[in-house]
Amino acid sequence: MRRYTPVRFTQVSVEGEFWRERLETVLTRTIPSQHEQLERHGLLESLRIRQPPPPLRIPVSNHGMSTQVFWDSDVGKWIEAASYSLAHRRDTTIEAQIDEITEWLAKAQLPDGYLNCWYIGREIDKRWTNLRDRHELYCAGHLLEGAIAYYQATGRRRLLDVMCRYVDHIADMFGPGPNQRHGYCGHQEIELALIKLYHVTKERKHLDLAAYFINERGNRPPHYFDVEALARGDDPKKYWFKTYEYGQAHKPVREQDKVVGHAVRAMYMYTAMADLAAELGDDTLQRTCEILWKDVTTKRMYVTAGLGPSASNEGFTQDYDLPNDTAYAETCASVALIFWAQRMLNLDCDGVYADVLEQALYNGALSGLSRDGTHYFYQNPLESDGSHRRWEWHPCPCCTMNVSRLVASVGGHFYSTGEDILAVHLYGGNSARMMIGSRDVHVRQEADYPWSGKVKITIDPETVAEFALKLRIPGWARGETLRINGQPFDTASKNRGYVDISRRWNRGDMVELDLPMPVERLYAHPNVRADAGRVCLKRGPLVYCIEEIDNPNAPVERLRLPHAAQPSAMEDKDLFGGVVRVVADAELASADDWDDALYRPAPSTAEPTRMTAVPYYVWNNRGPNRMLVWLPEA
Amino acid sequence: MRRYTPVRFTQVSVEGEFWRERLETVLTRTIPSQHEQLERHGLLESLRIRQPPPPLRIPVSNHGMSTQVFWDSDVGKWIEAASYSLAHRRDTTIEAQIDEITEWLAKAQLPDGYLNCWYIGREIDKRWTNLRDRHELYCAGHLLEGAIAYYQATGRRRLLDVMCRYVDHIADMFGPGPNQRHGYCGHQEIELALIKLYHVTKERKHLDLAAYFINERGNRPPHYFDVEALARGDDPKKYWFKTYEYGQAHKPVREQDKVVGHAVRAMYMYTAMADLAAELGDDTLQRTCEILWKDVTTKRMYVTAGLGPSASNEGFTQDYDLPNDTAYAETCASVALIFWAQRMLNLDCDGVYADVLEQALYNGALSGLSRDGTHYFYQNPLESDGSHRRWEWHPCPCCTMNVSRLVASVGGHFYSTGEDILAVHLYGGNSARMMIGSRDVHVRQEADYPWSGKVKITIDPETVAEFALKLRIPGWARGETLRINGQPFDTASKNRGYVDISRRWNRGDMVELDLPMPVERLYAHPNVRADAGRVCLKRGPLVYCIEEIDNPNAPVERLRLPHAAQPSAMEDKDLFGGVVRVVADAELASADDWDDALYRPAPSTAEPTRMTAVPYYVWNNRGPNRMLVWLPEA
Repeated sequence: MRRYTPVRFTQVSVEGEFWRERLETVLTRTIPSQHEQLERHGLLESLRIRQPPPPLRIPVSNHGMSTQVFWDSDVGKWIEAASYSLAHRRDTTIEAQIDEITEWLAKAQLPDGYLNCWYIGREIDKRWTNLRDRHELYCAGHLLEGAIAYYQATGRRRLLDVMCRYVDHIADMFGPGPNQRHGYCGHQEIELALIKLYHVTKERKHLDLAAYFINERGNRPPHYFDVEALARGDDPKKYWFKTYEYGQAHKPVREQDKVVGHAVRAMYMYTAMADLAAELGDDTLQRTCEILWKDVTTKRMYVTAGLGPSASNEGFTQDYDLPNDTAYAETCASVALIFWAQRMLNLDCDGVYADVLEQALYNGALSGLSRDGTHYFYQNPLESDGSHRRWEWHPCPCCTMNVSRLVASVGGHFYSTGEDILAVHLYGGNSARMMIGSRDVHVRQEADYPWSGKVKITIDPETVAEFALKLRIPGWARGETLRINGQPFDTASKNRGYVDISRRWNRGDMVELDLPMPVERLYAHPNVRADAGRVCLKRGPLVYCIEEIDNPNAPVERLRLPHAAQPSAMEDKDLFGGVVRVVADAELASADDWDDALYRPAPSTAEPTRMTAVPYYVWNNRGPNRMLVWLPEA
Repeated sequence: MRRYTPVRFTQVSVEGEFWRERLETVLTRTIPSQHEQLERHGLLESLRIRQPPPPLRIPVSNHGMSTQVFWDSDVGKWIEAASYSLAHRRDTTIEAQIDEITEWLAKAQLPDGYLNCWYIGREIDKRWTNLRDRHELYCAGHLLEGAIAYYQATGRRRLLDVMCRYVDHIADMFGPGPNQRHGYCGHQEIELALIKLYHVTKERKHLDLAAYFINERGNRPPHYFDVEALARGDDPKKYWFKTYEYGQAHKPVREQDKVVGHAVRAMYMYTAMADLAAELGDDTLQRTCEILWKDVTTKRMYVTAGLGPSASNEGFTQDYDLPNDTAYAETCASVALIFWAQRMLNLDCDGVYADVLEQALYNGALSGLSRDGTHYFYQNPLESDGSHRRWEWHPCPCCTMNVSRLVASVGGHFYSTGEDILAVHLYGGNSARMMIGSRDVHVRQEADYPWSGKVKITIDPETVAEFALKLRIPGWARGETLRINGQPFDTASKNRGYVDISRRWNRGDMVELDLPMPVERLYAHPNVRADAGRVCLKRGPLVYCIEEIDNPNAPVERLRLPHAAQPSAMEDKDLFGGVVRVVADAELASADDWDDALYRPAPSTAEPTRMTAVPYYVWNNRGPNRMLVWLPEA
């Protein structure tokens, strides 16, 4: 095991067209519009606690909207995304907005440090009585992530100080002591936030509290969720989800070997577990993460890196149960998978983690944000009858800020450094500065990724420097070529998905990687019932789909891709500023000779046609229409 | 148009093994056990109104079960099924049970004739205030059907008289008069019951009331459901289903041309419309039924004759939207489709109606009842991951008595008579007596249907009689042969699915029909996304499915049926007293060389295997397991 440190997004200037456009959209449109939506839908109003509690107060004004117990978290996530935006460029409006929120929070905070606006505003006497369902620590975690990001972006400590007081209160309340609650949140999140806090404060108590929550989770008997239910007079057996698998609290985390329950909770928890494995050198946590990683990526993940087929638990069901039209595949879950993948990658630089990170980034996560930056998907199905539409806002707006904080910090996923190592995980135009050992190194990538796999990397160390450059060869790549200063470099001996180039690097050394990007067919494991007899098209990291709007003469449900067809890539500069389409000779099952039959003994006849596919992440940006990722193969 | 009259089930003695076994099971196990369940779950208790209302009473004791507003209907449907049972054989226990229920109902009935135990017991001041949602007239309809069946089986009028008083009250309340409500039930049912009542009483007012409800439905403006919502202080816009399509009240019935909304409501309504078309000679209703029939059978029906893919409305969605694993396909909807099909068939003896009637009877309806007669399916999916199980009872037990009343009266679907016409719609061993014109005719079928298509029909008129025998040649049949007294009879010139044999019939005349029953492949219309690249096996009227339990070495999701494979039939005397299985050479997609991949560029390799299919209606009788109707075709 070797430890790597990601190069922060603040050190990576995104220059390639693909991410530059998404980033600009998020900075200029998404983040400001999200503040407007938070105001319009009463989330900001919910923070304006006007009278001190207790006694129990009348609910605060909320513009007639139903309020949600988890709204603090959405505001926290917006602060985080907006702070990332500030790291790109100063914006006095955003700073004023965050400072204003900070003042509300500071005013709402109770003398003992407690700070949850739902409970303070509505039912302060019930705080900490229902960790299982009521998201108190989850909200604290997101506010904490926001406070950390704002501090890192601006150096202003006021919100961070407020949150540290709250964390001190939480640390008083929860822990192994006889007068402490031995509890943890039903929705994991605070654990990973506390580790982020530890990175800022270096205070061991913050790391210890994260570890406490992880280590205590699912311990029996008695189960904490049972204890607290009985204490508030509820019957634990009447838990609406029936099993604590829903929040991965059904057994101690180190005994878990199946990815179950609510997908976002699972991913946030695994992220924290991988963090703790790194910070504490805890091999048992790392090994558990590896088992869970294998489980999800080999049996329970869509080809888009979407997670969780089921709406009823927003999560996992059975192995290989991956229905396309009813896929839940919440945007948040794919974003959180990226967080986890990054932690795993930095524990142990293995390409399997970077492959999934990339797969989620370009597909299941990115699909959650519209081209205009102000519409969203909560669910990301792989097939649509035309009834799915992007929405402007959602009663549970978690996905909106998850995708904006992801894109606003996307540069942070490109590089890691280790001891005398620079690892390049993702490709795309950017220019980055980092310390490798004690040396300042500037790295510049020129690439039209993901449209092209030709990547030129210039290495500019401050002075001549000896270190290993680990260059990821994506799992999807075949026949890549590599040149160092024009000289071929053999890529045959890869080390778990990375080519290691150990040498003395001089200023201006040039690494040229060419990853051919033919259109590839993918087939699903034969246990995946939904994809039997079907094929999916992929090019580079992008999964493709067929949208009705591009195939007006061929109802998408009647298209068949012949096994012998050779799909090809075709640049379309007019679509969304330029995308590569995939076109292919296809067959169209004819409905002409069916008359009034719905079923008949003879299969449909087929006529030749052409089909056009677009990257999955752009789907539904030209209005709702029928869509298909997995095409029947003729 | 020609009018036919079905030969009642009381005139048809079911002798063939297939239906004899199902009938015996229903008579000896299902109907008695349903009475026990009605008692156990509080449905009978809910009828025991102990104190006269008003004033508003405390809810009656209900054994701690949550009660349902529609429970009267379930009791009514049980009375109907149990009365059919009595028509087969007297049973003093059942008679005492029905008489006891009759006394409770008579005692509960209000002086003005009103009789709904939910409202009488709980909120009498609210009666008739919410026809849209509260099932009052629906309950009346089912109690009425029960009362009619009991009267017909036993000649006892007490329950019928109680219900006629209630009908008189309903006729006072609803109608075109200035002091009447211009309403109709949100859940159609009373319309068809009133027509049954008219057949018994011959009182025109009963037919007129049925016609009123049908003719008034969906008239605008103002819409009755809006009017009554406003009257009770509700906002009509807050209707939970949003559109009155849910109950087919979105427009006048004669303007409806798409089958929409709740499937059972739709089928019950169309049944009544077809009845009224016959009784009133109303061509506009018949034409509307024909349009709706074509719509549902050519675009919105499963191959099992299951109806309604969606759980959210228990009904219809979009054309060709027929997902298999999430298919709702409520048992009641297929039963009700049989009712409608029979009405259409008797309006206009066209084989398309008999084909669908048979398809529903042997597949989507029959699957709702377990082999042991005491377990049920509410939903009838065409694919299962093993999570579907038959239940002993259901919070909404509508399907249980729908399937028992169907089986208990199955003989009533075999024959119809017209003026000098005998039409044979279904095959299977039975012996029937009927009047054709003024002549008594005995007809006997000997057949091992549906396992074999060889049918021997003996015609025994009282005296020599001239009439046309209309013999259905099922839509699925190819190459049938027919002999009359040993002489070949050409079947080429069929009249809409029926061979007409007009002759003088003598005692002992013998008709021998041979319907070859090869195993047939069926393909779905190319617009059906869920079935692309898939094939379904059918033999005679039976749809087949693959169950895991029969294919233990071949996970059903990995089976592929090669296009060239020749499935064959194989009798299995050990399975459920004898069924014909279908066996075929198949391919098993190999998972061996997938290692840990979930997706890969190469399709699965396949190895040869054998597969065994069983009739769909028997599935899940050996415990929950994986099941597939539509097989991927290799």
